[in-house]
Amino acid sequence: MKILSHNAKSGRRVKACLAQIHVLPGQPTANTETMLKAIASARAQTAELVVFPEMAIPGYLLGDAWERDAFLRECEACGHRIREASKGLVVVFGNVALDWRRHNEDGRVRKYNALFVAENGRFIGPRGGTYDFVVKTLLPNYREFDDSRYFYDLRRLAAEEGMSLEQALAPVITERLALGCVLCEDAWDTDYGISPLDLLKRHGVDLFINCSCSPFTLNKNTKRNRMFAAHAKRLKKPFLYINSVGIQNNGKTVYTFDGASCIYDAHAHQLSLPSRFDAGLLQADIPLASLEFGTPLDAREDGVADIYQALVFGIREFMQILGVSRVVVGVSGGIDSAVTAALYSRILSRENLLLVNLPSRFNSPTTVNLARELAANLGCYYAEVPIEESVRLTTAQVNGLAITSPAIAGPDGSLRTRLVLNDFMIENVQARDRSSRLLAALAAAFGGVFTCNANKAEATVGYTTLYGDLAGYLAALADLWKGEVYALGRYLNEAVFQREVIPAGCFNLTPSAELGPTQDVDKGLGDPLIYPYHDCLFASWVEAWQRTTPEEILEWYLAGTLERQLNYEGKLADIFPSAREFIADLERWWRQYNGMGVAKRIQSPPVLAIKRRAFGFDHREAQMGVWFSNRYLELKKQALARQG
Amino acid sequence: MKILSHNAKSGRRVKACLAQIHVLPGQPTANTETMLKAIASARAQTAELVVFPEMAIPGYLLGDAWERDAFLRECEACGHRIREASKGLVVVFGNVALDWRRHNEDGRVRKYNALFVAENGRFIGPRGGTYDFVVKTLLPNYREFDDSRYFYDLRRLAAEEGMSLEQALAPVITERLALGCVLCEDAWDTDYGISPLDLLKRHGVDLFINCSCSPFTLNKNTKRNRMFAAHAKRLKKPFLYINSVGIQNNGKTVYTFDGASCIYDAHAHQLSLPSRFDAGLLQADIPLASLEFGTPLDAREDGVADIYQALVFGIREFMQILGVSRVVVGVSGGIDSAVTAALYSRILSRENLLLVNLPSRFNSPTTVNLARELAANLGCYYAEVPIEESVRLTTAQVNGLAITSPAIAGPDGSLRTRLVLNDFMIENVQARDRSSRLLAALAAAFGGVFTCNANKAEATVGYTTLYGDLAGYLAALADLWKGEVYALGRYLNEAVFQREVIPAGCFNLTPSAELGPTQDVDKGLGDPLIYPYHDCLFASWVEAWQRTTPEEILEWYLAGTLERQLNYEGKLADIFPSAREFIADLERWWRQYNGMGVAKRIQSPPVLAIKRRAFGFDHREAQMGVWFSNRYLELKKQALARQG
Repeated sequence: MKILSHNAKSGRRVKACLAQIHVLPGQPTANTETMLKAIASARAQTAELVVFPEMAIPGYLLGDAWERDAFLRECEACGHRIREASKGLVVVFGNVALDWRRHNEDGRVRKYNALFVAENGRFIGPRGGTYDFVVKTLLPNYREFDDSRYFYDLRRLAAEEGMSLEQALAPVITERLALGCVLCEDAWDTDYGISPLDLLKRHGVDLFINCSCSPFTLNKNTKRNRMFAAHAKRLKKPFLYINSVGIQNNGKTVYTFDGASCIYDAHAHQLSLPSRFDAGLLQADIPLASLEFGTPLDAREDGVADIYQALVFGIREFMQILGVSRVVVGVSGGIDSAVTAALYSRILSRENLLLVNLPSRFNSPTTVNLARELAANLGCYYAEVPIEESVRLTTAQVNGLAITSPAIAGPDGSLRTRLVLNDFMIENVQARDRSSRLLAALAAAFGGVFTCNANKAEATVGYTTLYGDLAGYLAALADLWKGEVYALGRYLNEAVFQREVIPAGCFNLTPSAELGPTQDVDKGLGDPLIYPYHDCLFASWVEAWQRTTPEEILEWYLAGTLERQLNYEGKLADIFPSAREFIADLERWWRQYNGMGVAKRIQSPPVLAIKRRAFGFDHREAQMGVWFSNRYLELKKQALARQG
Repeated sequence: MKILSHNAKSGRRVKACLAQIHVLPGQPTANTETMLKAIASARAQTAELVVFPEMAIPGYLLGDAWERDAFLRECEACGHRIREASKGLVVVFGNVALDWRRHNEDGRVRKYNALFVAENGRFIGPRGGTYDFVVKTLLPNYREFDDSRYFYDLRRLAAEEGMSLEQALAPVITERLALGCVLCEDAWDTDYGISPLDLLKRHGVDLFINCSCSPFTLNKNTKRNRMFAAHAKRLKKPFLYINSVGIQNNGKTVYTFDGASCIYDAHAHQLSLPSRFDAGLLQADIPLASLEFGTPLDAREDGVADIYQALVFGIREFMQILGVSRVVVGVSGGIDSAVTAALYSRILSRENLLLVNLPSRFNSPTTVNLARELAANLGCYYAEVPIEESVRLTTAQVNGLAITSPAIAGPDGSLRTRLVLNDFMIENVQARDRSSRLLAALAAAFGGVFTCNANKAEATVGYTTLYGDLAGYLAALADLWKGEVYALGRYLNEAVFQREVIPAGCFNLTPSAELGPTQDVDKGLGDPLIYPYHDCLFASWVEAWQRTTPEEILEWYLAGTLERQLNYEGKLADIFPSAREFIADLERWWRQYNGMGVAKRIQSPPVLAIKRRAFGFDHREAQMGVWFSNRYLELKKQALARQG
C-alpha cells in the first residue's frame, strides 16, 4: 500500500484525490468505467484515498427506475467491480445499497442511499454497524428531491435495530484513518434537530467526507461554502466535499450539476478545482492535524456569468442525452428568442443552427429586420416563412363553419349552428401555426428540434399559447424573469461576444407578441405585462421563501410597503392610479397563475432549472381553480369602500 | 346532549353518521360550509358522532400550495368554525394542523396531517398527548403520494417528545367513548413493521375510526374490504371507514375519489352507502359490544362497469374544476375516439358535444363513414373538415425551402442548403395539423376544449405525435390498454346505451393512424403495435408490481414461459418466427418507452387515473436514454448465437 510521509501524530497526512466525475444518470456500467479510470489515475498519482460523489454508479434523479430489480442488481455488481479495484488504496463512493431480505415501507426491496468504503478489495462499514456501507441519515424531501420515496434512512434503521443514532453514526476505520462519512443532506442539518457530523465527531474522526449529488442553484455554492466551512472550523478537521458534474432530470425539470468539489480547512479556507461544470481530479496532500490552505473562502455571490455558464452547460448536455445535434429557433425580433439564439450559437456550429422568422401581417418590418440582423450577426442559417396564407386558410375553414347533427331528426328537431372565430382566437391560431405547423416541420426537415423561448414571467401566468410559443423540446429560459433575460442578453453582447450580436433594437423594443393590431410595436404597444413590476410580484408568489398570496400583497399595498417588500424599484402609483386598478391587475394575474397557467405548465416542455423553485418538480401544483383567502376578500372590500 | 339508548355495558350503542362529503381541493371555506350542513343534518337525525374524511377542510392533493401561510391560516380558522358547531355532539374531521412555533425538516412551519375531535365546542386530543389533535403516524410516500414532503409524522414527533409510539398512540376520550382515531395509511400497515391500530387497542378503545382521502383505483375497495374487515375482526370492535368524494389531481394525474365509506363489524361484515362516487350520510346505530350487520363483505372484483363509472365521474368533475362545458372530439372512425365520444355523450347534452372528422387523402371512406355513423347515433354536432389543403401548403413551404446564412460572406463562404420533408415527417405534419391547427381552433370557436384520445399502449411507447394526437385538455383513456378500450366500447353499447351506438366497424377495423399508404385500413394495414401482445408486454414494464425490463422478458422468452408470465393468451411463435424478430421488437418498444415516450409524456395532457401506475405522478420518470442490463446483452448474444 502506497503510504505518504506521515511522521509524528501531529504530522499525519493523507494524499487524497477528489474524483469529480461526470455521472450519467441510469447508466451504471458507463459510470463504473469512468470511476475505474479515475482510480487508475489516482493510483498513478500515488493517492491513498479516492473519493467519488453520492450515487456515482446509478445517478440520482432517475424517477421510478429505482423499482427495476434488474437495474438494482446491476448497480450492486458495479459496486463490486469498484471494490475489487481498491487494492492498495481506499475508495469512497456513493451507490444504492440493497438489503434483499428486508423491504421498504412501500413493500419493495430495501434500498439505501449509501456510501461504500472499499480498501484492499473489501468493503468496510461503520464501526459496530449492521452493514458494510454507510447509510444516509437525512433524506431531503422538498423542492426537487424525492429521497424518502425510494430510500430508507439511518434514523429509521437505527430504530429498527434498537440502536441509538449516535451508535449508528460511527466512523469507518480504514488501515490508517477514521473517516467521518456523510451524504449530501447530512451536512445541511440546520432544520433537522440533529447533526450527523457532530454525532460522528464524538467517536473520533480524522477526516470528514461529504459525498453529494447536489444540483446547481444560483448562490447555493456561496451558502454551502459558508455552512461547510463553519462545519470544518467547528469540527477542527479537514472536510472534503465532492459533487458530480453533468445533468439529471425528473422529467419536467432539468438540473445541472456543477461539481464545485473542494476541501475546507479548519480556518474557513478552501481548496477547489479551478472551474465549475468540469470533470476533474482534485489531488491534495492533506495534513490531518492543522490543515491550512491559505486560499480564502469563496464567498462570491453568483451572477449573470454563472447563469450563462449553467445554461450553456445544461443545454449542451441535454442535447447530448436526447441525441440532438441540430436546432431551430423561431426568432421574432424580441429579446427572449434573440437570447435563446445567441446561447445556442455558443453551443452549435453555425451549420447546425437555423433561425426562422415567421411573420404575419401583424409583424412590423422593425422586428423582421431585427431577426435578420441577429441571424447575420450569428452567421447561422436563416429563413423567413410567412404564416399568412395558412392563418387565412384556418380562418376560412373554421369561421362560419356549419356544424349540424346528422341524427335522423327526432321530435326535438336536428341541431344546426355556425362557428365564429373571433380576433382573440385568431391570435392563438397564429401562435400555433408558427410552432406546431411550421417550426415542428422545419425542425424535422432540418434534422433537429425547435426551442421554446418562454421566460418565467410568461410561464407563471400562462401568457403563452399552448402548442404555440409554449411548444418546443426544452424551455431553457423558463426559470429566468424577463429582467434576467435582458441582463443575460447584455452579458452575451458585452462579455461573451464582445460585440453587438443581439441588436440594440431587441433591447429597446416594447415586448410584444405581435398577434394583433393592439400589439403594434411601432406604436409602442405590446404585452399586458409590466415586466419590472410583474417580475417582482410573480417572484413573491413562486420563489420567495414565504410564498405570498393576494392577501399579503394587498396588505402591503395598503400599508404602502409593497415596493420595499417586493424589491420593486419603481413606484406603484406610476402604474396604478388607484386601489381599484391595482386590485384588478393583481386578481387578473393571480387567476392566470393558478388557472390556465397550471394547465399550460402541465403540457409545457422541460424547464432548465437555474434558481430556487423552477416550475415542475420544484414547484408542484394541482389544477384546483383559484383561491382568495377570506382575509383578502375583507381587505379588498375595505380598500374599495375607502376609495368610494 | 342527545344520547341514545345505552343500558348495560354490553348494550352500549352509538348513533354515528359517516359524512361522505364532496371535497373541493384548495377551497377550505367551501368545504367548511358543506361540513356545517352535514353536521346540521346529522344533528337533526339525533346523531351523537359525525365523522368526516381526512383533510376534509383543505383537500389533499394540492401540490405545493401547502407552503402558503395564508392558506394554512384559513384552514386553521375553518377548523375552529367546525369546533364551534360541535355543541351536543362529537365531530371528527381531517384538517392540516399547524404548530407555528416548530418547523418541519424543510425549515417551513410544522404541519401535520391531522384528525380533530371536537365535542361541545372544544378539541380533544389523544389522552396524555402533546396536541389537541391526532397526528397521522404512517405517511405514504409512494405512487401518487407525497405526504412526507409536507407533513411531520407521529413517529418523528414521538421521538422528538421523548415518548414511545405506544404512548403517543392513545385514544381520544370523549364524554361517552374512547375513540381509536387513525388516518388512511395508518390502517394500511402491512409493510411498516408497526400497527397503529394494535398499539391503540392496548389502551382500550370502543370504536375505531379511519378517516381517509383515498383515490379510487381499480380493485382497491376489494383489497380494503379484506384488510379492514380483518382489522375489525382482530380488534373485536366496530371499524368506521370514511372517505371523500370528488376529484383531486397533482397536475399530470387526475384522481377520482369514490367514497365507499362503510362500517365493518367484528364478523367481517360491512354496512355501506348504496353507491360509489356520491356524497351522502351513512347513519347507523352501532352497538359497541357485539356488532353484526348481517351484510356480507363486498368481495367483488372491479370490472368494466367500475371503469366506466370512474371515467364518467372523473371527466364530469374535471370539466367542472376547469369551468369547461363544451367539448370537441376528433373522431377518426377508430375505437379510441369512438369510445371517447360515446363517454362524453353521457356527460354532455348533445348541443355541447361536437365530433369532427378531419380527413386527408389517406383516410378511407370506411373510417369517414364510421365517424359519421357514430355522430348520427349520438345525435350531437358533427362536421368534416379536411386537412389536405393545409398539409399541401406546409409541404410546399418547407420541402425544398432554401435556407441561407445572411452573414456577410467571410473567408469560409456563406451557408446554403435546401430542406427536405420526407414521408414520415409528413405523417406528423398531418397529425399536428389536425390537433394544433384545426381542433384547437374549432374548440375555441365552439367555446370549449378538445380531447386527447390516446390509450395507454400508445402513451407508453409514444406512438403518438406531440402537438398532434397527443394534444388535448385531458387524456381520459390514457390509463387503459387497447384491449380495455375495446371492452369499454362493448360495455357502452351493451350495457349503457343498449344499442349499437359505436358502430361494429369501429371494433372490426384494423387499428391505424391512416397517415400514409402503408396504413391503409381497407387493405388490413395499420399500426405496428400488435395490441393483444404489446398490451401485456407494456403492462409488465409499467404496472406490474415487479416491474420488468428486457432482461426478465428475454429470460422468460428463452425459457418458454413468457406467455404465462405476461398472461398473454396467444402464442408468441405466431407473431415472431424466431428470437431475432422477438428481440428486434422488444428493443424497438423498450427504446421508445424510455426515449421519445418519456419526452412526449412530459408534454402530454393530464391523465385520468384508473389503475395502479397511471403516467405522471404515479409513474415518475426521467429522460436519461435507454438502458439495457449487462445480463440482457449477454442473454441476447446467446440467443442470437444459438439461432445462428
